[in-house]
Order: sequence, then structure tokens, then C-alpha cells
Amino acid sequence: MNDNQLQQLLQAMTLEEKIGQLTQITGELYVGKVDAEMVETGPEYASHVLGDGTLYTIGSVIGASSAKFTNLIQSEYLKQSRLKIPLLFMHDAIHGYKTIFPIPLGLSCSWDENVLETAAAVTASELRASGIHVNFSPMVDLVRDARWGRVMESFGEDHLLSGNLGRAMIKGYQKIQEGRISAAGVAACLKHFAAYGAGIGGKDYYAVDMSLREFFDYYGKPYEIALQEQPKFVMSSFNSFNGTPVTASKRMMKDVLRDRYGFDELVISDWGAVAELQKHRVAHDGREAAELAMNAGIDIEMVSTLYLEHFETVLAQHPALLADIDAAVMKVLRLKNELGLFENPYASEEEEPSVILNADFLAAAEDAARKSCVLLKNDGDALPLRAAHKRILLVGPFAGTKELLGNWACKGSFDDVVSLADGLKQADPSLTVDVCETLADCPADVLERSDYIIASIGESWTLSGEGHSSVDIGLEASQQALVRAVKATGKPYACVCFAGRPLALQDIADDMPALLWCWYPGTRAGAAIASLLTGQATPSGKLTMSFPRHSAQNPIHYNEYSSGRPANASSYSSRYQDCELGPLFPFGHGLTYAGATYADFDISSDVITADKPVSVSFTIHNPSGYAYPEIAILYIEDVVSRSVRPVREMKAYQVISVPAHGSVRATLTVTLEDLHYLDAELRRTIEPGAFRLYINDPRQPVFTITH
Amino acid sequence: MNDNQLQQLLQAMTLEEKIGQLTQITGELYVGKVDAEMVETGPEYASHVLGDGTLYTIGSVIGASSAKFTNLIQSEYLKQSRLKIPLLFMHDAIHGYKTIFPIPLGLSCSWDENVLETAAAVTASELRASGIHVNFSPMVDLVRDARWGRVMESFGEDHLLSGNLGRAMIKGYQKIQEGRISAAGVAACLKHFAAYGAGIGGKDYYAVDMSLREFFDYYGKPYEIALQEQPKFVMSSFNSFNGTPVTASKRMMKDVLRDRYGFDELVISDWGAVAELQKHRVAHDGREAAELAMNAGIDIEMVSTLYLEHFETVLAQHPALLADIDAAVMKVLRLKNELGLFENPYASEEEEPSVILNADFLAAAEDAARKSCVLLKNDGDALPLRAAHKRILLVGPFAGTKELLGNWACKGSFDDVVSLADGLKQADPSLTVDVCETLADCPADVLERSDYIIASIGESWTLSGEGHSSVDIGLEASQQALVRAVKATGKPYACVCFAGRPLALQDIADDMPALLWCWYPGTRAGAAIASLLTGQATPSGKLTMSFPRHSAQNPIHYNEYSSGRPANASSYSSRYQDCELGPLFPFGHGLTYAGATYADFDISSDVITADKPVSVSFTIHNPSGYAYPEIAILYIEDVVSRSVRPVREMKAYQVISVPAHGSVRATLTVTLEDLHYLDAELRRTIEPGAFRLYINDPRQPVFTITH
Repeated sequence: MNDNQLQQLLQAMTLEEKIGQLTQITGELYVGKVDAEMVETGPEYASHVLGDGTLYTIGSVIGASSAKFTNLIQSEYLKQSRLKIPLLFMHDAIHGYKTIFPIPLGLSCSWDENVLETAAAVTASELRASGIHVNFSPMVDLVRDARWGRVMESFGEDHLLSGNLGRAMIKGYQKIQEGRISAAGVAACLKHFAAYGAGIGGKDYYAVDMSLREFFDYYGKPYEIALQEQPKFVMSSFNSFNGTPVTASKRMMKDVLRDRYGFDELVISDWGAVAELQKHRVAHDGREAAELAMNAGIDIEMVSTLYLEHFETVLAQHPALLADIDAAVMKVLRLKNELGLFENPYASEEEEPSVILNADFLAAAEDAARKSCVLLKNDGDALPLRAAHKRILLVGPFAGTKELLGNWACKGSFDDVVSLADGLKQADPSLTVDVCETLADCPADVLERSDYIIASIGESWTLSGEGHSSVDIGLEASQQALVRAVKATGKPYACVCFAGRPLALQDIADDMPALLWCWYPGTRAGAAIASLLTGQATPSGKLTMSFPRHSAQNPIHYNEYSSGRPANASSYSSRYQDCELGPLFPFGHGLTYAGATYADFDISSDVITADKPVSVSFTIHNPSGYAYPEIAILYIEDVVSRSVRPVREMKAYQVISVPAHGSVRATLTVTLEDLHYLDAELRRTIEPGAFRLYINDPRQPVFTITH
Repeated sequence: MNDNQLQQLLQAMTLEEKIGQLTQITGELYVGKVDAEMVETGPEYASHVLGDGTLYTIGSVIGASSAKFTNLIQSEYLKQSRLKIPLLFMHDAIHGYKTIFPIPLGLSCSWDENVLETAAAVTASELRASGIHVNFSPMVDLVRDARWGRVMESFGEDHLLSGNLGRAMIKGYQKIQEGRISAAGVAACLKHFAAYGAGIGGKDYYAVDMSLREFFDYYGKPYEIALQEQPKFVMSSFNSFNGTPVTASKRMMKDVLRDRYGFDELVISDWGAVAELQKHRVAHDGREAAELAMNAGIDIEMVSTLYLEHFETVLAQHPALLADIDAAVMKVLRLKNELGLFENPYASEEEEPSVILNADFLAAAEDAARKSCVLLKNDGDALPLRAAHKRILLVGPFAGTKELLGNWACKGSFDDVVSLADGLKQADPSLTVDVCETLADCPADVLERSDYIIASIGESWTLSGEGHSSVDIGLEASQQALVRAVKATGKPYACVCFAGRPLALQDIADDMPALLWCWYPGTRAGAAIASLLTGQATPSGKLTMSFPRHSAQNPIHYNEYSSGRPANASSYSSRYQDCELGPLFPFGHGLTYAGATYADFDISSDVITADKPVSVSFTIHNPSGYAYPEIAILYIEDVVSRSVRPVREMKAYQVISVPAHGSVRATLTVTLEDLHYLDAELRRTIEPGAFRLYINDPRQPVFTITH
């Protein structure tokens, strides 16, 4: 349709039909509870609201999967719908749909926008083949507290990296061609606006409180950056911000999101969040909740139906909202048109199997998994396996399991997963691979004959993700005992860890000569990890989130503020007395097998101006046979300024393809704009003075520049 | 002198002499290092700054003790001082000078302003007798995180209670008579302005970040309330606030402290804090640090001498500061005059011994210690000791020790302390009291003959206090083992715990039938506790700070905000999945032996208006033989409002003298003003609606009122 036709369609709609377009429900009301896996069910909807009169005005459905079922719902809907505006189908494919990639926190450790864009592109293809048009991803909520279970969905603690990786995923999802979402693309939904990752104490859904300076310079930045990629949706967050639930916050949704950040597409609430304004106790009843959310600019209500129930009374009081509603509905219609739904609202059930889990997608997932793993320790080059290591004993709860997808694995199936054991066998058929759940279970002869032990440890995927905040993020006692028992065998060994969050390993890390951190790697888990363990490839990931030493060493992040008594050996310094300084493994940490070195640092100028950025160049020498992606990071230190500044702040980074047995010259650039910050009056500020520049190692500056 | 004479004195002063009055150093430069205990030494002062020219212009000395030494310093100073303006002596007598009271967090558990006023009054008498004129107390920093070691100096997590108890101590210190500090009074210094207790992660000295709404309604309130008592000093805090070190913050020190809160007396920095502006990295050098602090309105620089060193260049740039300096110096002179120092700058060395540690003071300290203890558990009335319990075994690290003063115990001496063992013996000479450090050390016959065991456990006093943040606030493993070993004896037993902070007791509390929380009780520790253990008196304290279950369940506080998904059994609620809901022991919790009940609740009106507060009355029935102070607390719940509000908020409380075997009628009152809060635009707000009222039990409302 052209825009004129869409406008005519809008004109033809009743107000109730418009509100229907701004309501999202689950799909079982159209087809019954046909298949719980493929048509997720929602709450008990109020039948007086979702009667036949309104059920066929609804604009979108969440949680229906597969071409067959989305088509079934669509056809049932269109049969009875007066205006026959096709439904949008939306889903939560957080790190893949059927082909599961590493959890987002893992993906972020690749630092590689191409990896994330590809992951999103694969996901979009599978979604679209299944009849789904909108994906509730990416999440760019900044996180500093590993107690929050939802860190697994994040890109870690740095705002710049989080924003850039969010952009990459939006690009991968939407696949814009000639200004339109392509046939294999889906609309992206950036979430959760705003500051959802800052719940006090790391408690999910809990209140957020911070200065606006902290918000605009840190927590708000990832959204600001990612919005430049023009996602079709933004999701409002569950939390309150400085006393107002975001879903009821005009200030957040209009002043910040619309006016300051320039977002002009659709805002959708999170699941049930409009109704939850009553639980927040800012609304007496459903009518007030609807009024608050509509006034705040929440275009679409997800899985509660208060807009439909109360729009007449709300609009009677706020007639100005009619124009907002028309604008929002017009955006919905335009999106449906952009997706071609008016011409063909159905997915091809014939094509679907050729798209889902195809070989290219699995290869991409394996590549992403490989690049997401972070080698945290490798004392005495305990990894990779040597030629002499032929009889490998895999021990621990993750040795043989296929449950390596992580939380929010959408329609991923454990059946499709390569286990660690299978991965090793496939990677090197000359290996003997034994699997024992515990050392005690292990037959004496199996233990005896093994010449290398891999302890597979971690935190069950069920313990991270939404709603899974924890006070204790240590490695469970039985697994610590396993590591010590493995050590006691005297055989060479390494640890492979799976987790949806950083764990606090202070008490056990010394007993791990090598520690490969795999997060939850997805469908190709075992294959990817095996390639690293056997040395067919080198680990290359670097941490995007600090690992605390102790569960109570949260929040923690590399860009902490300066204080008047910087942490040192003294009691009278800003530290915990019973904990060594800093994280156990810092942001940016990650080893390789390559032994590359940085040399020949050069700087373009030691003075930075608005029209003359400063570039730092260096040569990476790789003595090894591994061609791999080296991650180079540039930090600045604002030596003195009128506001208290972070001790370090990342301003540039690059993933550099390093050739085997070769060298490569690389350059990282800082602009004057990068050095600005918000002062106490929220003015964008820079003062004359010195900035120290660091490459990778935040302890030793390579240059000092002045402005 | 009269004000005219003081003005003339000011006129006679050189600018350098004025700056001297605004500088505070330690006293050893006047008398040499005569006695490290009585004349505390400071840093290495820059000798080019503190030469003879300026040394005898200094206005005040910190850390000198006893009449003999303050007199010695004063006389040496006056000999060489041109204008012979006597020194002010200042000290940190946080919970007593020689007669040590419970730590402030303990005192706060009495909820009794009389107790705190008396503690302050005793402290003032001892200080003044020793020649000290200013006390760096009270601290009213709001705290919500027991990892911070300085919670011991606080009054807990409620802003109203903290403010009121701060007022009581200021009143006790200053003993204003006819508008002047009395002869046995000292000037109070309210600290640490502002929000020092909110360091991120509970790390001492660390940055603070919060919304202004959070500040003005919570963290700022205790200062605002306590300032109504007109302390002579306010101390600026070490921390930065929303990006500006408070010691360099015009906004905090002038806009808030002076203009909004109306403080018009002297502001002093914390120890070295002006120089530390360089460590905060907001000042390049000492001159800039001095400039920032002077501009921010820090009148007196403590233990760094940057004002003296740089005043000429700073004032050349900021001539307007000259008037501020004159005003500040005039306040110093007026205070010295108010204290009578121009007439007699010396303390009476003859009188001093009759004041220090006199019997009345010790009785007051014992009374305070008794009222500070909180009985957290008492299953099966395990306490008090019964008549049959004649052979008491005291076991554990605190059984025989006199180290029961707590941190910041000023000039308190362990020699003066009543140990738990001595206290018990004195309280009931018919008891046999055996003392063992551990059960293993305990001779078999001693254990055998004992008919009741008291396990004395806790956290060493050296582990809380300034600079002592901790990640692990559990009870140490050896003491947990002790408790379990005591339990295993099968004998009746109770636990007595000493600590400077709430500990996280999740793993051990079930093994404690009775738990008497004694904080650090001070000089009369054992006497006070013995009276409670033997049942001569009943415990009556109630917690002012929530006890987390786990070290990582911080921050925690009773007045947490509502959320859209209130914590419940579901995963998808605002909680930690691996931790039961709420604190182990909540704010307001505390048992007695009396078994009193509340009945006959009555309310003056179910509608509240500006000129008609609402009063809740009730009768407390005490069936026991204990006359004791019952603490009644009224909470409100703002049922619905436009901002997210705390689930409960204390609005009134009263310490009620309950007669033995009798009843008393009591009334708690809420005014309309109490129900206001700051909205998102920082406007003082109240909306029409309902408020639920709770007495003591925050789970069950007693009335609902409307406005």
C-alpha cells in the first residue's frame, strides 16, 4: 500500500479498532491452547474486554512460533477481523531463535560488531521464516552488579561497547534495504528503556535511583548510541527511575527518549507493565494505570488490556491523546506495510525448514561461540592440550550435558546441541574421551588411564536470566571440591566454566591452572570449545564485565570514580579490608595462545583539538601459528577536572585480524568530543588539561596528551 | 568580651592571623611529642608553612587530651602568640571520652533521646574538664549497608530517628544556658555533611550518587532535623556527591547547608580533606585545593595547611572571599568568647579527677548499655537465667575480655571495663562463673558441672569503624563452630553477641535459641549485660538497622520502595532467588521478657487535615514484674501516590515507661506535614488518598485514614 491508502485505512478505523492495534496479547485466544510450546499462553484476560468485538482488532501477538502456528493464528484472525489488518507477530529471540548463539554477555566478549550483526541476521532469518516480524532484542542495559541475573542478556559494564553492539544487532535484525526491512529481516526492539540494569542491590524489577549526570553519561548512553541505528521499537522498562515507574514517566519516555534522543518510532511496554503500575502503587486502578501509561507515551500495551478497557474514559479526560493514538496506529500500519503483510501476511511453511538451523547458521553460531570464550587463566600453558594428551577425562556437571544454551534460549532445542564430550571427539577423533559426572563416579581404571583432566564446572543456566537475582554468586561447594579433587590427582588439568554471569571465584581460582570461561555458548557449544581446548584455534575473547572476588564485592566496574583516599594497603583508604583490591578478573582481561606483543607505539600529536583527533598506532607482533582476532582497547584518564571522573574510561577499541607468524599495524583514535563529560549542572564540558592514554593495560599509560 | 571588643580584635588581626584562626592542626608542634596518648600527632606539616610566624596564629588543635596537656599546649601557645587569642581544643569523643557509652548504633537502639542526651552531657563534662571545647559528634549519616564499617557511629537506617537522636546529642553536648554553652558543655560538630553513609557498595570514602529527591527526603533529612538544635559546627564529608567532592561543593555547602537548611555557624573539613581534593583529582595542586574549599565555604581546614600556604594567591583571585573570612573568624572569636576562654583559657587540673569516670557517669553509661542491648531471639524463654542455673559457663572470645568499648572509644581504657564474667559475678554472687575461651580449652569437669552455657561471640571491635568496610559480615567460622559445639552439649544455653555492625547470621541463627545483641556496650558492659542475663532487668532495645541474611544482601532497609513486582514466592518478583525475603531481623525488632500486649486501639479521626493531626491511642498491658521502657513505633503506608513511595515509613515513635504489673495508655500522632514527600520535580507534595497506619507490626495495619 502507499501512504495514502494507509491513511485511508486509518480513517476507516473506529477508535476501538485503533486501540486494538495498540494492544498486544498472546495467541491462544485465536486458536485455543493447541501447542504450549508453539503458542505461549498469557494471563487470564478479562473476557469482558477481549470479547469478539475487540479480539479481532488486536494489533500484535507475542510468543507464537513456527510458520504453521503463526499462519494459523493469522488466518483465524483475518477471517473475523473487520478491516483485515494482519497481525504482527513478536517474540523474544534473545540470542537466536532455533540456532542458538552464545548469551549476549558472551557475544559481547568477542567485542566484534560483525559477530553480533551476524548473530542477529541469522536470528532474523529464522524468525521471519517462522512468521515472526518483531524481535524484543537487543537489550543494552548497562550492568555493574553480577547479582542481577539478567546480566546474561547484557553487553557488560561499558556504555560505549554496549551501545555499539546494540547497534550491530539492530542492523543485523532489520537488514534495511532501500529504506525497508528486507524479506529476511525483522523489526528490532531496543530495551529496556531505561536503566533497568541498575536496580538497587542487583534485585530484578527493583527501583533505580541515580543522578541525572550518572544517567546521561553512563546508563543512558547505550540507548542513545543504539538508537542511531533506528530500531522500530523501544521497550519501556519495569523499574522506577528516581521515583517514577518508567512506564508512567513522561519525563523519561518523552523528554529523554523522544526529545533528547530523537526516537520517533513505537514504544511498547514490557510484559504486563501497564497493569503493574498498580503494584508500583502509582495507580489506584486499571483506568489510572492506562491513563498514566498513555500520557507517558507508551504506544503499545503488552499483555494487559487496560488500554482497551479504559480508553473511552481516559480519552474523554485527555482528548489531546487522540492525535498521539492516530500517530502511533499509523506507525503500526506503516510497519505492517513495510513488512509486506498487506500483500502476504503468511510465512512459507515450505521454505521454513530450509532456513531453520541451516549449515551456514550453525557455522556462524560456532564462530560466535569460539570468539565469546575468554581464557581467564593459563598458568604454565596448561592449555591447549599437547600432542601427548590423548586420553582425556571430562569430569563435572557439564561434561556430557547438552544443556549449554543458557537462559532465554527461545526455541533452541537441547537435542541440537553439541556437548563438550561430543565436541572433543569430533574435533580430534584420535582422542579417547571419557565422561564422569564426578570423580567419585569415575571408574578407577578410567581415571588411571587418563592423561589430562578437564573439569567442567559452572552455574546452571536456570540460575541466571530474568527474575534470577542471587546473593551468592560463588561456585557451589561441590564443584569447588571437584576442582580440588582433580588437582589432587596430580594429573595435568584445566577448568572449563559455564555461567550466565561472572562468578565470584576468590576461594578457588588459585586451584585452577587454566580457566576457560565459556558463558553459555549455544547450539555449537562443544564444537567451539573443543577447537579451543585442542588448540585448533586460540581463545580471543576479553571480558566486558568485571569478575568480583566475593559475592558482596558488588557493584564493581572498571570505570569507578576517583576518591579522596584511593584504595591502597592502608585501612584508611576506599576499599574492603577483607578483600584484595579490585576485581579478580578485570574488564578487558582475556588471554590467547598466541603470545602476541605490542610495540612501536606512535602518536599523531600530543595535543588534541576539535578538528584534530589524536591517533595512537602500534604494531602487533604475533609469533604464533594462530591467525586470530586481537582486541585492542584504548582507555583515557582525565588527570584533573572539576568533576570527579572515572579512574579510566574506554574511548576506543578495535578487533584486529592478526595474521599467523606476522605483524599488523593498528590505530586507535580519540576525538575531542570523546573527552567531554557532563558536569554537575549537566553541561557538556571539557577543561584544558592533560589526559593519559592507555592501550590494554590500564596501569601503564603509553602517552599523555593535552587539550 | 563584648561584641565590640571582638570586632576590635578582628580589626587588629593581620590576614595571616585570620587564616591561622581558620586552620586546625595537632598539638605536638607546641610541646614536642610529649605523650603520644595525650597529644596525638598529625602528618609531617610543611615547615615553610608552619614556621614560628604562623604557628602562633593557629585557631584550634585536634587530638590533645587531659587538662595537663591542653593547658601545657595553651600556655606555650599563648606565650608566643601576638594577639593571645586562646586555642580551641577539639576532639573525637564519639561515644564518651573516658566514661565510654555504647557505640552510637547501640545507643540508637534505646530510641531514647534522654539516653543520648545524657551520654552527650557526660561526655561534654569529661571533655570540658580536660580542657576540650569542641566535639566532633554527633554523626547522623544515614546508613543502609552494613558492609560500611562506620555504621557503628550511626543511628541506623531511619532518617527521622537519626535526626532526632542527633538533636538530643547536640543538646547534651552544648548544654545551652541563657543562650551560651555552659561551663560543662562543649560545642557540637554535626557530621559528616553530606550523605557520607551512602558510599557505593558500602566502601568508606567512596563516591556517592543519588537523585536529589533521594537526598532531600532521606539522606539529607537527619542533618536537616539535627541542625534545628543549632550545633556550632558542621563537618564536611570526605565523599563526592554526584560528581563533586563535598569539600569543594558550593552547591552542597552553600545552597543546601546554608541556604536551604539555614546553618549559619562554622564549617570544618574532615581530616586532611582539603588536601585530598588533589586525590579526588579535581585540583591540580594545593593552591587549587585551597581555592575550591574556600570558595565552597569550608571555613576551617583540618590537618592540612593549604589555606595558610595559598591564601594570598587565592584571595588575590577571589577578593570577595575576604568578607567570608572575616565572618568566619568572627564566629571563631565569638565561640571562644562564649566558652569564656578570653577570661580563662585553662582547665582545672585539680577538678578534672572528680569529673572523669565519676559514679554518676558510670551509672549513666550502665543504664545506656542496658537500654542498647537488643534481644533478637528468645525461643522457649531461654533467657533470663532461671533460679536453677547456678553454675554458668561463659565460653567464647568475649567471655573474659575487657575489650568491650568498640571502635572510636576515645580515651576509654580497657582497665575500667567490666567484663562479662565480672559483671555476672557481681550481679549475682551466688553464681559460679567459669570462663573458657573455647569449648576445647574447657576442662571436662568445668563443662560437666555447668548448668547453663553462655556463648559470647561477635566481631572484633577492630573490624568496624572508620576505614573498615568488609565484604564478609558473617560470623567467623570458628565462632559458628563454637555455637554448634555448645548446642551439642545438650545443656541450656544462650548467645551474647558483640559487634560494631549488623552481622549476616543466616547460617547460624537457627542454632541460637536466645541471642542478645550487645553491640559494643562501653565501660559498664558486663554490669549491664549481667543485669539482663540474670533477669534483674529486661532487654528493651529495638533494632534501628536491618540485619541482612547474607553479606551480599546489602543494601537493605525497611523503608524500601514499592516495585511493580513485589517480592513473593515467584521467580518473577523483585527478590534474590537464593535468599528468603527480607532481613533476618528487621528494623524495629527487639524482644523483652515482659510479654506486654497492645490493646484498645483508638483513633482520633479517620480524616487528617492540616489543622487536625491524627492520633492513635492504645493501652500497653504489662503482666510482668519488669518496669521497663517499651518502644512503640507508628508506620504509614501511602497506599497510592504519583511517586513510588516506601512500602512503610516511620512517622512517629515513643519510648513509654511501662509499670510492672500494670498498664499504660499511649498516643502516637501523625500530622499532615508528615505525609508529604518530594515528587519528581522536587516539589513538596501530598495527594488526596488513603494512608494505612501500623503500630510496631509493619504487616498488619491498625487503621486507615484519608486525606
